[in-house]
Amino acid sequence: MTPACLLDLAKFRQNCQRMKDVADSEKMTLRPHVKTLKSLQAAEYYAPASGPITVSTLAEAATFASAGYTDILYAVGLSPNKFGQLAAIQSLAPNFTVIADSQAAVNALVDYASELELPLSVMLEVDVDDHRAGLLPESPELVACARALSAAANIHFRGIMTHAGASYDCDTKAAQQAMGQQECERIAKAATNLLQAGVTCELVSAGSTPTALADIEHTGINELRAGVYATFDCVMAGLGVCETTDIALSVLTSVIGHQGDKNWVIVDAGWMALSRDQGTASQQQDCGYGLVCDEHGKLLDGWYVSATNQEHGIISHRDNLTPPESVFGYGRLLRILPIHACATAAQYSKYHVIGDDGNITAIWSRVNGW
Amino acid sequence: MTPACLLDLAKFRQNCQRMKDVADSEKMTLRPHVKTLKSLQAAEYYAPASGPITVSTLAEAATFASAGYTDILYAVGLSPNKFGQLAAIQSLAPNFTVIADSQAAVNALVDYASELELPLSVMLEVDVDDHRAGLLPESPELVACARALSAAANIHFRGIMTHAGASYDCDTKAAQQAMGQQECERIAKAATNLLQAGVTCELVSAGSTPTALADIEHTGINELRAGVYATFDCVMAGLGVCETTDIALSVLTSVIGHQGDKNWVIVDAGWMALSRDQGTASQQQDCGYGLVCDEHGKLLDGWYVSATNQEHGIISHRDNLTPPESVFGYGRLLRILPIHACATAAQYSKYHVIGDDGNITAIWSRVNGW
Repeated sequence: MTPACLLDLAKFRQNCQRMKDVADSEKMTLRPHVKTLKSLQAAEYYAPASGPITVSTLAEAATFASAGYTDILYAVGLSPNKFGQLAAIQSLAPNFTVIADSQAAVNALVDYASELELPLSVMLEVDVDDHRAGLLPESPELVACARALSAAANIHFRGIMTHAGASYDCDTKAAQQAMGQQECERIAKAATNLLQAGVTCELVSAGSTPTALADIEHTGINELRAGVYATFDCVMAGLGVCETTDIALSVLTSVIGHQGDKNWVIVDAGWMALSRDQGTASQQQDCGYGLVCDEHGKLLDGWYVSATNQEHGIISHRDNLTPPESVFGYGRLLRILPIHACATAAQYSKYHVIGDDGNITAIWSRVNGW
Repeated sequence: MTPACLLDLAKFRQNCQRMKDVADSEKMTLRPHVKTLKSLQAAEYYAPASGPITVSTLAEAATFASAGYTDILYAVGLSPNKFGQLAAIQSLAPNFTVIADSQAAVNALVDYASELELPLSVMLEVDVDDHRAGLLPESPELVACARALSAAANIHFRGIMTHAGASYDCDTKAAQQAMGQQECERIAKAATNLLQAGVTCELVSAGSTPTALADIEHTGINELRAGVYATFDCVMAGLGVCETTDIALSVLTSVIGHQGDKNWVIVDAGWMALSRDQGTASQQQDCGYGLVCDEHGKLLDGWYVSATNQEHGIISHRDNLTPPESVFGYGRLLRILPIHACATAAQYSKYHVIGDDGNITAIWSRVNGW
């Protein structure tokens, strides 16, 4: 039944291998972010329980810890109302690690950690790109926080991490390389400053899909993090980080109507199925709410989802072509490539996995919520 | 724990009563759209099982049918791969009604209905605003479709329906009134054309929150449909359809950090918690990803969610004020009013209901998926 979220296993495997090769060739630990798919079955392919992972919610942390993952980094600053959940996750995943980026958060964590049975692993977040959260590499607060964590009785200070989210705006290879270098240099600078202040970082962790795949040596970091590379999406294709043919996630949809005078095809995938993400709107080519493929996944050149309502999508052609009946007739199936895989996947509780023979070979579940 | 989706019961009840009063005063049947909240417990307040409802997915239809609702309109055109689900819903809800807006869809439905045990109720969708789906009131295809449905052996033709979605762009009372009148006139015109062709419409159904609440007499329709009025949101407030103080839905979030030099407050509600909807971007005041209230729901003037990542929200002030520590300190709770309630609510599987004493009095569940 449509809409449904499809995962192309062959493309997914290829994407996973590509990032693994980068990490292996540079002898970095790869700590994949499982937040795009949030699926234990998917993670077996690119983030097995024998290695470290990154998560975006405590719901993910608890699920992966229950499944045998022991080294889990929760890469979002904690609020105090989440402290009560830490002990249960720690008991399953001894290397469960949380982050902080302020003296206030460090103080709260240090206080709370004293109540825990096991030592709490903590990393500090560093800001390398003026994008979101984190302490500046040169800031005295970074040193003060690291010293406080290192000195705390029941805390294991693991090191520092950053995420160059600004790389999502780098639309040339050169810009991605520059951002990748900036990311490494800035986090390495933070590590040097801490070392000079007497604090050693076991982990110096960085990464985003564009900077991880940039053609640079990731000097200065020993752990690479990235997430959306496992499926890719139209935003990544628009940045030139992948080709549209690499995109492993798609939404299966049915044609439910037409507006002939407007050359519109109406499908049953609206923003509820595709998400409201319009992340290509600022790119050279605006893909609206997704690029359109036939039911087998072959891109239909120039056709895209130009508008959405809750359960309706409107497909039109960039040159206002008339939709051919043979492709867009009532009841025909189509696949929509997601603008942002993390946002599209979030609209589902499961994936229909397409095997090498083009048929559904498995259904994988997903952890939603917090 | 944050983020969480809150529903203010007092405001919710008041909003529900407002629409009921409109329908009652004009002696129209109210067929609320349950797609915003998708919750059986919420529906008890504004769409009890004794009356008709509108749904946006077959998952909703099945859930509400199982709970005793007998008159359910599925207001999205069907794809053939959903036909197999109709019989089970019909067996619970005899007046379960589907829609079509093309000869192709009518033909497919007529064919399939012949296999059903019970007669299938069908309505035709009419386009009143060039917005999305539906047949034009004057179109020969509308007459042909109505005749085909009326003549079909196992089909009960119930009438016509429309939705003036273009009203979401009507930012003055006058424009909303004009659109409301256009909606009524155009659907009435369709009914007249059908009557002249020998087909009677038992139901002439229209509505959207702005046109339903417009200060007009809804002449020409006998059934009013609307959905988002139950909670309202920033889009509706921006159109002047409600006040921001009427908005009954909010996202509870925690402050997890700051970027002092930018006057940013970082919270744990990103687009995963708020949705990617930026529906006020084209309005006079862009509310970003939501307006910010204190933990009790009091609006904090000028503060809004200016940017989001997956699990991070950035709050800033329109005049770049420095966030006061007393309100925005680490760990403080805030509430975010949603841009588009349907999209925000869709990110959750349950609501925390705030009773008259300001405390959580209930947890209501939600039907997601298709």
